[in-house]
This record gives sequence, C-alpha cells and structure tokens, in this order.
Amino acid sequence: MTFTAPSTGQAVQAVLFDVFGTVVDWRTGVGAAVRRFAGEHGLDLDAAAFADAWRSRYVPGMRRVSAGERPFVPLDVLHRENLDGVLADLGLDPVRFGPAALDELNRAWHFLPPWPDSVPGITALKRDYIVGPLSNGNTSLLLDMAKAGGLPWDLVLGADVSRAYKPTMEAYLRPAALLGLEPGQVMLAAAHEADLAAARKAGLAAAFISRPLEQGPGVTEAGVATQPWDLSVSSITELASQM
Amino acid sequence: MTFTAPSTGQAVQAVLFDVFGTVVDWRTGVGAAVRRFAGEHGLDLDAAAFADAWRSRYVPGMRRVSAGERPFVPLDVLHRENLDGVLADLGLDPVRFGPAALDELNRAWHFLPPWPDSVPGITALKRDYIVGPLSNGNTSLLLDMAKAGGLPWDLVLGADVSRAYKPTMEAYLRPAALLGLEPGQVMLAAAHEADLAAARKAGLAAAFISRPLEQGPGVTEAGVATQPWDLSVSSITELASQM
Repeated sequence: MTFTAPSTGQAVQAVLFDVFGTVVDWRTGVGAAVRRFAGEHGLDLDAAAFADAWRSRYVPGMRRVSAGERPFVPLDVLHRENLDGVLADLGLDPVRFGPAALDELNRAWHFLPPWPDSVPGITALKRDYIVGPLSNGNTSLLLDMAKAGGLPWDLVLGADVSRAYKPTMEAYLRPAALLGLEPGQVMLAAAHEADLAAARKAGLAAAFISRPLEQGPGVTEAGVATQPWDLSVSSITELASQM
Repeated sequence: MTFTAPSTGQAVQAVLFDVFGTVVDWRTGVGAAVRRFAGEHGLDLDAAAFADAWRSRYVPGMRRVSAGERPFVPLDVLHRENLDGVLADLGLDPVRFGPAALDELNRAWHFLPPWPDSVPGITALKRDYIVGPLSNGNTSLLLDMAKAGGLPWDLVLGADVSRAYKPTMEAYLRPAALLGLEPGQVMLAAAHEADLAAARKAGLAAAFISRPLEQGPGVTEAGVATQPWDLSVSSITELASQM
C-alpha cells in the first residue's frame, strides 16, 4: 500500500506522530499521578486542573528555547521547572516535597496511557510505513512511554536529537533527513492544527487526528479541524485504513 | 531480570549492539549483491573477495572523519566512495556503470541478513532491557536493515545522530545520554575487541560475542576473545540467557 499526499504529490514513506494528546492521553495520565502525589502528601487539590495548569506552561517554556533566550534543554527539564511553577501558583513551596518526590511526579510524562486505537493503528501502519514519534519529548521519555504502553515504533528520535522544538522548522526537517527522506515523503499525524501547519510549511504531508477528549470532556470546540489536511480522521486505526 | 556488570558495578539498563559482523553477516549479504551486480554487468569477479576489499576500506574511511581531516559524512557516503575505490583497484572505471547502479549496489549495506540467533536473542533481551544498535551505520541504513530483517530494536540512533564514529568516545557517550542513562548502565555487545575496549574506556559495560564466520570460513583466529569482558558468549541468545 502507498499513499500519495495531495499537498506534496509524493508517496509517503514514514508516518511520524505528535505524541502528547495525539497518541497518549496526557490529561488522564498526569491527573492520576497528581492524585497519587496529593494522597501521599495530604494535599487537597483538583488533579485534572493541576494537569491542565502544568500543560498550560508547556508551550511558553519551549518558546523561550526556540526564541534563543536560553540554550536547548530537554523537555524533562522544562516539565520539572513548570511543576515548581504550578505548585507555587497553588501556594505550595516546592522545597517542602524534596527533589526526589518531584522528580518522581515529573516522570508521569514518561508513562502516559495510549488512546485505545493507538497501538493497533500504529501496528497496522508499521507494515507499510516507517512509524515513529515526532514529539517535543526527549528520547528517554518517549522510549519509556513506548516500552510501558507497547507503542511499536520503528525508531525514537526525541527533540533532544534535533535539539529543536516544534514548531521550529528544524524539528521537522532533521528527522526527515535522518530517515534519508525528502520532507514530502514524511507525514506528520497530529491532533493540533498549529503543529500540522508548521509541518506543512516545512514541506511535510499532514494528517489531522481528532482527539475531542484531549482537554477533558467539557471542551466542545476541541477535535474539529478548521481547514483541509491531507487526511482528517478520528483515530489512528482510521488513518491506517485510509492509507 | 537484572544484570550487574563486574567492570562497572552498575545494573545494566540498555544493551546496545555493534551491527556489522555482530548482528548481521555483512560478508554474505554484500557478496550476494556483488554477485548480482557482476551478473548484470557481465563481470567476472570474486564476490567474496570484492566484499572483503570493500570492507577493508571501512576503518580508514571513518578514521579521516574521526581525525578531523574532513567533516562528518554518513556511512552511506563513505561506502559509496569506497565502492569507487574497489572498482578502480580492479581496473574498472566506476563511470561506466552509472550512478544509479552503484547507488543500488551501495544499498546492499542496508539489507544485510541477521545471524540466525540475532532476532530471537534481541527479542528475548527486549523484555528486560532497552535494545538498540550502536553502530557506525547511519540511521536510515540501520532502519532499513531492521525492517527488512525483523530486528526488534526499541530505538535506532545512527552515527549521524552523534555525528561521531566509533571508537571516538562521543560515539558511545551520546547514545547513553540520549537514553538518560549513565555510561555504566549501558552495555555494548560486539564481536570486535577494539570496539569493546573503546566502550569500556567510555565507561560502558562490554560483552563479547564470538562470530568466527564474520570474515569467512578460513579465518581461524577470528571469534576468540583475548581478554576478559563482562560477558563472553557465542550468540545473542546465549547473551540473553546469561543476563
């Protein structure tokens, strides 16, 4: 099977995936870890709101790296800094928990649960395409997640390989180059249109995967594409069947 | 299961493999491709000797990069240059074959057959350890080989990720860093003692895998370890059973 992307006119050889929100359910996974942490430390807090607050610091943290305001640091480092910020916003001094407990909580991002269709969808695509993550996560984070969740990637190149965060062009172009492929032979599959738009600008094909529950059950506008992409599907299994 | 390496005193988390000769039989694979090429072009040549001559240019080619005499180029580029050299040594002008035929022959290095124990051995190790190549091959070469041969790597980081060739220290240290591991938590498994010695110098654990047939049936001293390593085995399945 081969799929030729309308936007590039090239046959796709590799399907690379955004991970947080597209392949795994970060809100459920982080929420569960926060709930355990709160229980262990006798805290009364809203775990889902905590996860949302943590995630909301994700883009601003990377933007400082991408803008050249600080050297590249892996996402594990940004997540850990952001955790301190979320705690401080809740009036909780991070120092009271000690670094080991916070590092452990930070590792929740390494062990997020795949959406139900992720493993079967990626497994099906793997027969005809190279499959891997194209995520802002660092390699060890993505590898832990793959081994725990059974994600059958062909290869794992974290953002610490290209030392660039999406939506920087280099974050899309370096994986394609390492695969020995032209950008148009690579497809990004993601639940976020800003990511897809940057991939398209870099010359990649782009597939939208609807994840209406990524930000929880109440976010009604989530999961709807506002523009046409090479493919627009509601699961990775549907992506596999259309390719 | 965990294995603590005597040389490092640390529990091994990842087993990374030298590939050419250790995981795959380059001499048989390249020889078969040379035989096809010779048939297509009406050449009378010794395919095994051709493969040996091609391989003999491998280390000198990388050494110029490691010595800083030229910028890093992927192994595909070195193999292709070396192919021209082998042809010229046989009195064959590379130009007469055209670049497409030579590029095709060069891709023989992407599709080398695993030794019979490689896939079952790596599969067994994968249950308890991170498994991947630690090769001078570029990422796309190693990925083609893995998909064609069914090598179930957890991740594929080619030498074009670290932009360093073994036995340069960086070639061992960068993969460990990307895995989020200390050097002593990583074991190199290889059939070549110079590679193992460099890995040990970089702080990695080291396992010798005997491959007496790597250079063909006549090389009697091949496959014998001359010094003690953390493990010394005759197959990857034996490595898995000892770890």
